[in-house]
Amino acid sequence: MDQSVLNCEHALGMALREATGPECPPMLTTALDYAVFPGGARVRPQLCLAVALANGNGDPLLASAAAVAVEFLHCASLVHDDLPCFDDATTRRGKASLHATFGERIAVLTGDALIVAAFQHIAHSTSALKNPERMASVLGIIGAGVGAPMGICAGQAWECESRVDLSLYHRAKTGALFVAATCAGAAAAGVPTAGWVALGESVGEAYQVADDIQDAVADPESIGKPTGIDVALNRPSAVRELGLDGAIKRLESCITKGLDSIPHCPGRGQLLSVVQKQSNRFFPKGIKRSAA
Amino acid sequence: MDQSVLNCEHALGMALREATGPECPPMLTTALDYAVFPGGARVRPQLCLAVALANGNGDPLLASAAAVAVEFLHCASLVHDDLPCFDDATTRRGKASLHATFGERIAVLTGDALIVAAFQHIAHSTSALKNPERMASVLGIIGAGVGAPMGICAGQAWECESRVDLSLYHRAKTGALFVAATCAGAAAAGVPTAGWVALGESVGEAYQVADDIQDAVADPESIGKPTGIDVALNRPSAVRELGLDGAIKRLESCITKGLDSIPHCPGRGQLLSVVQKQSNRFFPKGIKRSAA
Repeated sequence: MDQSVLNCEHALGMALREATGPECPPMLTTALDYAVFPGGARVRPQLCLAVALANGNGDPLLASAAAVAVEFLHCASLVHDDLPCFDDATTRRGKASLHATFGERIAVLTGDALIVAAFQHIAHSTSALKNPERMASVLGIIGAGVGAPMGICAGQAWECESRVDLSLYHRAKTGALFVAATCAGAAAAGVPTAGWVALGESVGEAYQVADDIQDAVADPESIGKPTGIDVALNRPSAVRELGLDGAIKRLESCITKGLDSIPHCPGRGQLLSVVQKQSNRFFPKGIKRSAA
Repeated sequence: MDQSVLNCEHALGMALREATGPECPPMLTTALDYAVFPGGARVRPQLCLAVALANGNGDPLLASAAAVAVEFLHCASLVHDDLPCFDDATTRRGKASLHATFGERIAVLTGDALIVAAFQHIAHSTSALKNPERMASVLGIIGAGVGAPMGICAGQAWECESRVDLSLYHRAKTGALFVAATCAGAAAAGVPTAGWVALGESVGEAYQVADDIQDAVADPESIGKPTGIDVALNRPSAVRELGLDGAIKRLESCITKGLDSIPHCPGRGQLLSVVQKQSNRFFPKGIKRSAA
């Protein structure tokens, strides 16, 4: 694990301890830990921190709090997404899903408690007093990435509609939290956020396309969760829409678009290589890339 | 309806419009409205506003945002509490429960979106810039009332444990959000919050005892939700513990304790009468009070 991942794990662990403690019902404490550790690739919090770093990282505690919040909210969405009423997934990240291990009630409550902990962690960051405008801005940006009308909750809710606006659906379900990650990183560093929307959107779209490709072709054992869900649940998917080769081309073009969108900033070179490195992990092993 | 209730309904409606809008999936928009309107007695937001008023209400927008957040979080907890995996309630506030009307998936998402909207509404209040310390304090207080380790999520999670700490259970499940309401009102007004914990605890305990009495003796039609749940689910209850007369005495003593705890403040007289009036509604119709 490289240093930025280690920092991220440490910050997540500290924040989780703040949110639990001896008064917490024991099963909820265990389930909160189970939801967050061991994690996936931590793409979103690393992206958030990388954008803050590229812009001078003038308030590292706020940037770290924003990264933790984004990851907590991502973990919450996975736990609720796996519930029997949604995907009814029995595995996640290579182990039994949270509701399969602790029951449905604890799964609902773990998601709820992680959402609360995300916002509380930002409010408790020392930046509440040091940089109050930045803190309020970070809170608003992250809230927009997860709530209604255009965050993750809205994205999931599109799956319940008979007529779906596909573009709104993807932007809300996956893109919004990536946009929150890049923009919260910029906001924590005190620079205007508008220039950072495109990077979040592109990486988010790449991630979604990569997920569709995995769902279509990957081995469930190797990625630690079930596959074939998109066809089984008749969900929109880049592979169903464009074929496998078309989806791979789309993934490559999203990454290029994301890299090209990165605004001029003091640490642009370093950020380019971080995004490139993260994006390389989006290609499932054994997938042949196009000549482009 | 008196003026304070009307103000409260207006603020809730405005905040809900912020959280929805034309991009929101239509069913989620409708369900969010269904979860919040028509409301119950709005005891918590009125208590929050009354405490802010009694202390000079120096930042009315923040006090209003805090009251809205507390009610959104209460509504979210009701929606999740009614889910099939918890109480499996088919009615709430005299109409079909949210999951019975919109399905389980939309019910999970409506609760999630309300939690996010609560925190976002505070972050968007103009006080984010005007009184940043107060805003951060209000956020932290309200987060503590709903999350782990000692807020509503923790309270619900105690119901999943085989060995329950009854005192922690009641404080977390019901008391915590009342404490958040009184302390957030004080924090929004810029006065120390420590003196306002006891009022929240006492009113919260009174509310819990009143709920236990209702569950034991009220007519489901008249209160708009099922009764007899405590016995059916083998839950701790003041009526099961103390008998009906004992529970009524406990309710009366909680109210007296709450009124006595109110600290000296500019609007103490007015606040006493608001709390007294709200508390009178805790007694189910037809219940004979004790001589005390």
